[in-house]
Amino acid sequence: MKFTKLITFGAALTLLPTLAMAQDATPGFDEIGPYIMTTLLFLVGGFLVFWMAAGFAMLEAGLVRSKNVTTQLTKNIALFSIASIMYWLVGFNLMYPGDGWLVAGWMGPFFSVTSLEPVGLAAADATLDYASVASDFFFQLMFCATTASIVSGTLAERIKLWPFLIFVVVLTGFIYPIEASWQWGGGWLSEMGFSDFAGSTLVHAAGGFAALAGAIILGPRLGKYGKEGQVIPMPGSNLALATLGTFILWLGWFGFNGGSQLAAGTVGDITDVGRIFANTNMAAAAGAVAALILTQVMYTKVDLTMVLNGALAGLVSITAGPLDPSLFGALWIGAIGGVIVVFAVPFLDKLRIDDVVGAIPVHLLAGFWGTMAVPFYTGGTSFVTQFIGFAAIGAFVFIVSLVVWIILKGVMGIRVSEEAEINGLDSSELGMEAYPEFSKG
Amino acid sequence: MKFTKLITFGAALTLLPTLAMAQDATPGFDEIGPYIMTTLLFLVGGFLVFWMAAGFAMLEAGLVRSKNVTTQLTKNIALFSIASIMYWLVGFNLMYPGDGWLVAGWMGPFFSVTSLEPVGLAAADATLDYASVASDFFFQLMFCATTASIVSGTLAERIKLWPFLIFVVVLTGFIYPIEASWQWGGGWLSEMGFSDFAGSTLVHAAGGFAALAGAIILGPRLGKYGKEGQVIPMPGSNLALATLGTFILWLGWFGFNGGSQLAAGTVGDITDVGRIFANTNMAAAAGAVAALILTQVMYTKVDLTMVLNGALAGLVSITAGPLDPSLFGALWIGAIGGVIVVFAVPFLDKLRIDDVVGAIPVHLLAGFWGTMAVPFYTGGTSFVTQFIGFAAIGAFVFIVSLVVWIILKGVMGIRVSEEAEINGLDSSELGMEAYPEFSKG
Amino acid sequence: MKFTKLITFGAALTLLPTLAMAQDATPGFDEIGPYIMTTLLFLVGGFLVFWMAAGFAMLEAGLVRSKNVTTQLTKNIALFSIASIMYWLVGFNLMYPGDGWLVAGWMGPFFSVTSLEPVGLAAADATLDYASVASDFFFQLMFCATTASIVSGTLAERIKLWPFLIFVVVLTGFIYPIEASWQWGGGWLSEMGFSDFAGSTLVHAAGGFAALAGAIILGPRLGKYGKEGQVIPMPGSNLALATLGTFILWLGWFGFNGGSQLAAGTVGDITDVGRIFANTNMAAAAGAVAALILTQVMYTKVDLTMVLNGALAGLVSITAGPLDPSLFGALWIGAIGGVIVVFAVPFLDKLRIDDVVGAIPVHLLAGFWGTMAVPFYTGGTSFVTQFIGFAAIGAFVFIVSLVVWIILKGVMGIRVSEEAEINGLDSSELGMEAYPEFSKG
Repeated sequence: MKFTKLITFGAALTLLPTLAMAQDATPGFDEIGPYIMTTLLFLVGGFLVFWMAAGFAMLEAGLVRSKNVTTQLTKNIALFSIASIMYWLVGFNLMYPGDGWLVAGWMGPFFSVTSLEPVGLAAADATLDYASVASDFFFQLMFCATTASIVSGTLAERIKLWPFLIFVVVLTGFIYPIEASWQWGGGWLSEMGFSDFAGSTLVHAAGGFAALAGAIILGPRLGKYGKEGQVIPMPGSNLALATLGTFILWLGWFGFNGGSQLAAGTVGDITDVGRIFANTNMAAAAGAVAALILTQVMYTKVDLTMVLNGALAGLVSITAGPLDPSLFGALWIGAIGGVIVVFAVPFLDKLRIDDVVGAIPVHLLAGFWGTMAVPFYTGGTSFVTQFIGFAAIGAFVFIVSLVVWIILKGVMGIRVSEEAEINGLDSSELGMEAYPEFSKG
Repeated sequence: MKFTKLITFGAALTLLPTLAMAQDATPGFDEIGPYIMTTLLFLVGGFLVFWMAAGFAMLEAGLVRSKNVTTQLTKNIALFSIASIMYWLVGFNLMYPGDGWLVAGWMGPFFSVTSLEPVGLAAADATLDYASVASDFFFQLMFCATTASIVSGTLAERIKLWPFLIFVVVLTGFIYPIEASWQWGGGWLSEMGFSDFAGSTLVHAAGGFAALAGAIILGPRLGKYGKEGQVIPMPGSNLALATLGTFILWLGWFGFNGGSQLAAGTVGDITDVGRIFANTNMAAAAGAVAALILTQVMYTKVDLTMVLNGALAGLVSITAGPLDPSLFGALWIGAIGGVIVVFAVPFLDKLRIDDVVGAIPVHLLAGFWGTMAVPFYTGGTSFVTQFIGFAAIGAFVFIVSLVVWIILKGVMGIRVSEEAEINGLDSSELGMEAYPEFSKG
Repeated sequence: MKFTKLITFGAALTLLPTLAMAQDATPGFDEIGPYIMTTLLFLVGGFLVFWMAAGFAMLEAGLVRSKNVTTQLTKNIALFSIASIMYWLVGFNLMYPGDGWLVAGWMGPFFSVTSLEPVGLAAADATLDYASVASDFFFQLMFCATTASIVSGTLAERIKLWPFLIFVVVLTGFIYPIEASWQWGGGWLSEMGFSDFAGSTLVHAAGGFAALAGAIILGPRLGKYGKEGQVIPMPGSNLALATLGTFILWLGWFGFNGGSQLAAGTVGDITDVGRIFANTNMAAAAGAVAALILTQVMYTKVDLTMVLNGALAGLVSITAGPLDPSLFGALWIGAIGGVIVVFAVPFLDKLRIDDVVGAIPVHLLAGFWGTMAVPFYTGGTSFVTQFIGFAAIGAFVFIVSLVVWIILKGVMGIRVSEEAEINGLDSSELGMEAYPEFSKG
């Protein structure tokens, strides 16, 4: 329509220059299409990763005993909310220092609208070869929140609510953004050639290391380990919820890995997103089947919680490199992730590290495996560099987390009283039962 | 490709007219891209808002006692289904009277396919600067259904099934479409300068007013208020479901607010959708954190149901203007929403208005706050106009709803018998328990 | 950017030919837009259909008794995982034989990356008038998995885990791909003029026939049918989960039907997707309302499980032709689906075919109705051809399934012991309760 109008104003001879001018002022869809598609990828990918917060909440609520369910739910919705605020207040700019400080607006006039891009951004002012800053912020925020979600499951059934939430403030405002900036912020790891497509190390292993530090300082649940070293099972209260949570996470992971392509406006990019979806699904399926078969063989009965964690381990394993492997590659990467979980869960128990939902095997150990598997398929990567990257992030997150947990323990205590633990955190911490009418067995 | 073929048929001199003809017949992607993107926005936004129906169902099923869960679930799936039919039969055309009567087709031959657009719509017949009518209908329908979802929670545990469903027929076929047409149908409120981006007033407060009218006519649950004015707690039966419902609503709200940009085919529009996503998430997070801190301070223990309602109140608050505020603006708009809920829930109880799930504080009161907050950020709006708009819609919905509830009460009765209420609506209304095997505490 | 580089290499005079070359090499967004949009449709549609796997899991877990919930959850996540592997290993190529064998890569070097398309596919190598093979594979895989999901509900509460999973291997690797290739692989049914847009017959009735064969061989649950022919109700343990599952399926169905348009890059195609969304929603709503009214009239009380199955039957009914009908057409197609379910569930019980979740009425019978309803709206189709297609697929799937079930019964037994059935499959098959703390009523 604009084109037609231009013709009526100009003569035939001036048509071409006029056209050129029009394109300068308002680029056609041909020029803005990639920007729109990549922005859309971030928005759709972002809401899928948001959905993972619900997945962690359901998984963890299903795997704790009913007397601790309300606390676990509270921790999950609170940690996501805190991450949303901290990543805006500090994290995003700490992770991408080049972009100017995001919250600058509120240091000025109180009702400032300065934030992200202006409303109705002109195409001429947009980074047409990338995407909207707002959509990018939205997408990246979800990864920061995911890191915190991983921690809450391991420490369930014995940690006080507020120390946990204060740890989340530090993790999402500082620890995650700093280590993630080493790679995704263009830092030293990315310069060294470390490769972590969607965050097997940066998100999952990082969350796992923070959880491990917490589990060591916090100690195991009362009665978890008997005097003769035996492990007392403490079955989760609602496996339907746990399964729902796993399906939610599996769904969200398409956004997690697919969105990490960071581009969707060319044939190559959108096709790559398709490859990533197919590989992500294959790795999850292979992890589940591996755990299914292995628990049948080892224990003569299938263990559903292992199958769920096997699927999640498959997903974590493929996350470092979901693009390059063939579907068969994705299968065996995921399957090994599932195998790792089946062996690592009892192994952790031997170390008397009490990880209520199995987050350390799933996120830390399968994250390690996924990170180390990258050089099998991705050119220009090396096992040594992958190991250095994993070790550096692991050491940083573990040590800083350990220090924070120790400080929190000293200052305010991080563990509920024995009585509170026996009666359940829901009554001591919140005074609110999750299932008040269902009598306990 | 078509372009190349045209060249071979025409001489160089005839190229330009030929091009113009070709564009008339089949416009290139450059011209249809915005239409496709906006249609896609409606479809993705629409399925996300559809998902909110599941969110309301889970939230409400989790917050009622187990003896009323089946009834609450039935109400929720039935109200959505009825809204889908009534909005097609009457509502859409009542709301957008200019578009020709949608159901006209079925007044003609029985097997008519006249509906929405023809199959395989030609680009020449499309409104290229907007979107597919079908996608628009699909998207708008979900807002109509949401209004009805809000009502069902407040009136839980004592209302008869069928009178409620008849009220839904009136609400979704007539009340909502009429008041929504005042603003979104280009009516007198929009001409006056009222601003309600995605429906803090049109959807949420309207649903809240319909619920308030019902709660007044229906009266509180038996035993809810003691003789000395004390409030008897009636805790929800399943907080895991309630939390899941909140996460579902939070997810759906990205479609609710983001889709309300009503355009996604330019750099400015898609970037605005990104701003809206980021602001919507921030407001929800801030509402949750505000309720988290406030309940800790006021009651010395965090209250999960308040945190959930705080997140929802943050979402309702930002809905009137999710585009213009900065992220910091979204934070305090949402946080005040969360504060409102914490104070309003006990205040309603003092008035002996029994709102089972807190829908009136969340949707009506936070909707009021969100509507009044618009002029802080959005130019061309005024507090007076915002107040007039809110008051006009509130008065209309409240009075008409009151009349309908009174008529229903007189004609068929709206409240179950005392015995049925004590035994639970599931046995009296449906003869079917939600959790038949879990014994009641 | 590539364009700029080309200019520096060429002289001014050679610019235009160079441009043409450049365009050959890297087509502009105008040319690749449709490819990107259709690929996106497959990815979004695919993740929505993936989500249906969670819907089936929740629906079935909610409709079985609590002593069988863990087994039902295990079957659902396992069957999806197995389908993901089998469809890659065999199914996809069996269904679309023209595309070259997908797993060829792994017959070569172990670390081969040959799979789907190469990473970073060049536009020149892409099928620009269709979509990415990876996205298509991802989308089609979900339909294969859905077929298996349908079977698991019917056979609940008495089938052994492993024989069921072996059946899934055969169903997803061979039975489904073969019959689906007759139509969607360009086989004899499509040449004959059979029409099944998204799979009322190919997916839903096929799953229903496989389930029917299993139910006959397996026999009813102990105590389901009394000696005088009376039917003993065995109510589901968690109607909140069942309702959630239904909402999930409803949501996923937008992808199921909408994605089956197989194109989204023209005005006509994206508008058609919009029509399909609106019609799909209408049919589900009409099925639910029909069951709502009918159960009230027939039994004087609404039956929630019938309403849920009514919505699902509406969805199955519209699946054979979601594009062509008007909204009113979709309404009555869906409503008849709902009516069928209300009558068919007790009818199956009279035949002593024990279908735990009502999958045969919903998927087989409503699938039959939906298939036969196509000629009312879709030109070039006939009732005879529709019947032949339905009968051919039904006969093939039923007979092959029957043979497989008989073989499995002979070789390893498919039914748990009486004692195991009475105590619940969760203890005998898995040794793991779904709700260990909620005492049984």
